[in-house]
Amino acid sequence: MSTEIQIDTELDLENPLLIEGLAGIGHIGRNCVSYLAEEMDAEKIGILNSHHFPPYTIVNDDKTLDALENEIYLLEINGRDVVMIEGNAQASSSQGHYEIADTVLDFAEGLGVEEIITIGGYGQGEVVDNPEVFGAVTSDKLKDDYTGHGITFDHDVDQIVGISGLLLGLGKRREMEGIAILGETPGFLMSDPKSTENVLNCIEGILDIDIDYSSLDEKVEESQEVLKKLQNLKSSHSDGEQSQSSDIGYIG
Amino acid sequence: MSTEIQIDTELDLENPLLIEGLAGIGHIGRNCVSYLAEEMDAEKIGILNSHHFPPYTIVNDDKTLDALENEIYLLEINGRDVVMIEGNAQASSSQGHYEIADTVLDFAEGLGVEEIITIGGYGQGEVVDNPEVFGAVTSDKLKDDYTGHGITFDHDVDQIVGISGLLLGLGKRREMEGIAILGETPGFLMSDPKSTENVLNCIEGILDIDIDYSSLDEKVEESQEVLKKLQNLKSSHSDGEQSQSSDIGYIG
Amino acid sequence: MSTEIQIDTELDLENPLLIEGLAGIGHIGRNCVSYLAEEMDAEKIGILNSHHFPPYTIVNDDKTLDALENEIYLLEINGRDVVMIEGNAQASSSQGHYEIADTVLDFAEGLGVEEIITIGGYGQGEVVDNPEVFGAVTSDKLKDDYTGHGITFDHDVDQIVGISGLLLGLGKRREMEGIAILGETPGFLMSDPKSTENVLNCIEGILDIDIDYSSLDEKVEESQEVLKKLQNLKSSHSDGEQSQSSDIGYIG
Amino acid sequence: MSTEIQIDTELDLENPLLIEGLAGIGHIGRNCVSYLAEEMDAEKIGILNSHHFPPYTIVNDDKTLDALENEIYLLEINGRDVVMIEGNAQASSSQGHYEIADTVLDFAEGLGVEEIITIGGYGQGEVVDNPEVFGAVTSDKLKDDYTGHGITFDHDVDQIVGISGLLLGLGKRREMEGIAILGETPGFLMSDPKSTENVLNCIEGILDIDIDYSSLDEKVEESQEVLKKLQNLKSSHSDGEQSQSSDIGYIG
Repeated sequence: MSTEIQIDTELDLENPLLIEGLAGIGHIGRNCVSYLAEEMDAEKIGILNSHHFPPYTIVNDDKTLDALENEIYLLEINGRDVVMIEGNAQASSSQGHYEIADTVLDFAEGLGVEEIITIGGYGQGEVVDNPEVFGAVTSDKLKDDYTGHGITFDHDVDQIVGISGLLLGLGKRREMEGIAILGETPGFLMSDPKSTENVLNCIEGILDIDIDYSSLDEKVEESQEVLKKLQNLKSSHSDGEQSQSSDIGYIG
Repeated sequence: MSTEIQIDTELDLENPLLIEGLAGIGHIGRNCVSYLAEEMDAEKIGILNSHHFPPYTIVNDDKTLDALENEIYLLEINGRDVVMIEGNAQASSSQGHYEIADTVLDFAEGLGVEEIITIGGYGQGEVVDNPEVFGAVTSDKLKDDYTGHGITFDHDVDQIVGISGLLLGLGKRREMEGIAILGETPGFLMSDPKSTENVLNCIEGILDIDIDYSSLDEKVEESQEVLKKLQNLKSSHSDGEQSQSSDIGYIG
Repeated sequence: MSTEIQIDTELDLENPLLIEGLAGIGHIGRNCVSYLAEEMDAEKIGILNSHHFPPYTIVNDDKTLDALENEIYLLEINGRDVVMIEGNAQASSSQGHYEIADTVLDFAEGLGVEEIITIGGYGQGEVVDNPEVFGAVTSDKLKDDYTGHGITFDHDVDQIVGISGLLLGLGKRREMEGIAILGETPGFLMSDPKSTENVLNCIEGILDIDIDYSSLDEKVEESQEVLKKLQNLKSSHSDGEQSQSSDIGYIG
Repeated sequence: MSTEIQIDTELDLENPLLIEGLAGIGHIGRNCVSYLAEEMDAEKIGILNSHHFPPYTIVNDDKTLDALENEIYLLEINGRDVVMIEGNAQASSSQGHYEIADTVLDFAEGLGVEEIITIGGYGQGEVVDNPEVFGAVTSDKLKDDYTGHGITFDHDVDQIVGISGLLLGLGKRREMEGIAILGETPGFLMSDPKSTENVLNCIEGILDIDIDYSSLDEKVEESQEVLKKLQNLKSSHSDGEQSQSSDIGYIG
């Protein structure tokens, strides 16, 4: 097994909910969950690392180094334990995507998680004036619950690539329920604060919390700096090794 | 092992026959077996899932999600148990194709299967006015049996890619016999009702059954909707994650 | 382990020599060893099959099917047991090449093999009027032995890709000795009877045997038919599944 | 496990330091560590080999063959044991990069290594008149230590690809500290003696040793010959097998 989750403490959770937001189109998912964790002062409880991530090491602005990883946070919200997973990397191969999704689901199942929210972006390929928030659910009966929070099911999304879809598609087989929340976005932007805020609005309603949006623009910009380091790596001329396997398709 | 077959019931079969039809050229195989299972009211007995499938999750028209999987059906025909495997996905890597084929063969061998029929399409690259049905067999003596049912062995097929070939080529080493039935088709069509019907005609003769073709066009169109969701994904702008590993070559 | 060698009989060999010739540039290796095995009436003793081969199944001219495999032959020559491995397929990934080479070396080591001859082609990229036969050896002292048999060490070969190099490079670590014999060839021909004959001349001298060349042209042409079925598959429109993973780079 | 380190002797080291320099941009790392090992008369104590290397076998100028491998050297410097790993190959896949890095870290941890220096190049994409030496460290407090030796932290490096980054990023999780030293270089040169010398100057200061540079140009040229054999292999027409998997992206 080349993917593992390392948790620092023993966990005994109440009615746990899993929220996933990893790098992707417009980095909506990663930015939403990252902002949520920071604003709500969630506790970092562990990491997920994998041999299936791209073989890149980030050099931070202060010239310290960090291997790619996904971070896991815990937060109690209205008597419910919310486990969040966010980060800059997804798998770089088909098999890696499935292995990472199954590793997260094993972990979630062990915690007693029965509900999953995944967050991503939906790239329209053109400028979007009033970005909507699209939903896709594990079972039809869930649609009513979410419609009230600003999520629409009137859209043309055909499929979801990567972990945001797999956690729900594979989780369904384990009797887990949930929703993929996709912020409409042009798709060619590195990040999209407006769409990110729209998605956070929906999360605010679903979780019945108050989010302070005053630092959002700043945070989105900050994370953009890190993500830019990974984006467009192939056209980049940086680094200590010229290795570039063609099976590395995903970054950032 | 990252590929597994989950069967809901215990099986004790009589002279079992395996029929395979997965997505491929013109989706002949997938559409034939899907139609056969539905029209003949076959019982769904399980699924095959694999880490080697492309990492896509289908969003259905009602906005529910489904992970990719192959479905396994059982049907008693003229005192014989027919096990059918059909679905929208094949492996996305060389090794995955072999692993999935061997998983199906292990399963089939455990059931006592000694005969296999695989169904696919043969793309001519141009319009085909009167599509024929081509056959390739595990041993020469089988050709006579099938010629009577409208299958011709007068063709130029050089090789078969994917599971339709591997099940027979690898099955032969396990003393299994069988035929690959390939519907001639342009190759650039998403689906081909005429060629699908021709292949079903042959199956009808081989299994000595009556198939009602009245819903075929409708069913082919229906399945086309699902397959379209996966087809041409690379040129698509949809979804929650932008991950696109270059080792993902097959969809739909 | 997804690569295995199946041997039909128990082997107790005398001073065994391993000769490898698989499909490659100009198919020199595959054609030489195939011709040698057939002309000298070698006994087929087993096969090597692997999940790392391309997922193609050959449809023979008589419309029977065969999975890709390498064949293993045994032949006694002048009191010495010669084990030959030949076939139409090599691995379709880096890791597969190493796994297959190590599987062959484990097998060879178990038989007591201490000497290996691998045969391949060296593509010059242009017409070659008088093709030479190039050698590369595991240790310098071997060069004298082979020069007498028409093999020259005055050439520009920089590296060998695939099993012909790995068997010797990795075998060297197991105290095995040997030579890679490379027939000079344009590189753009499907097969090259002249270069094949030149290499066979060298083998004839090394093994101190008499080869009847009268059927060579015919055999080369025959094998070309099979190899053509696999060659250029990507531009081909044939088969039952359209799957084409981009990690499939090698055929034929 | 398809990667392994073979060590010839039992090791009991004093305050060990690991230095890594493998082939990469401008081959700075490989050339620095290779030169250091040779000039300081380090003892070769073992090798690292891996199924994840490209499946190429080098034909040396004397027509002997060698499989790709990384070499491991030991050298006592000022009462400290320095373990060096250098060589012509890195992994050809994402997963391979992580597996090789973890194998090296397991080995280093077993020896009691707590400090790692990795060496690479940073390609600027244009002519560099006065190449600098850039650093990236596992923790901020290390910067002061290294600045005195000619390494600057005023640079734009965003990420490091391959083992030079992973050893530090993943090593950090094992409580190891260290620095990646990157010689500025155009990036399009096969090797860069000037930048190599600059990096060696820094190493000289860090290790408090005297390096004789008189043979550097000659050695760089020598190593360039070997590296050229692997570089641009795809455009090359050489070798015994035409296999070329598209998942082979890295050589040299």
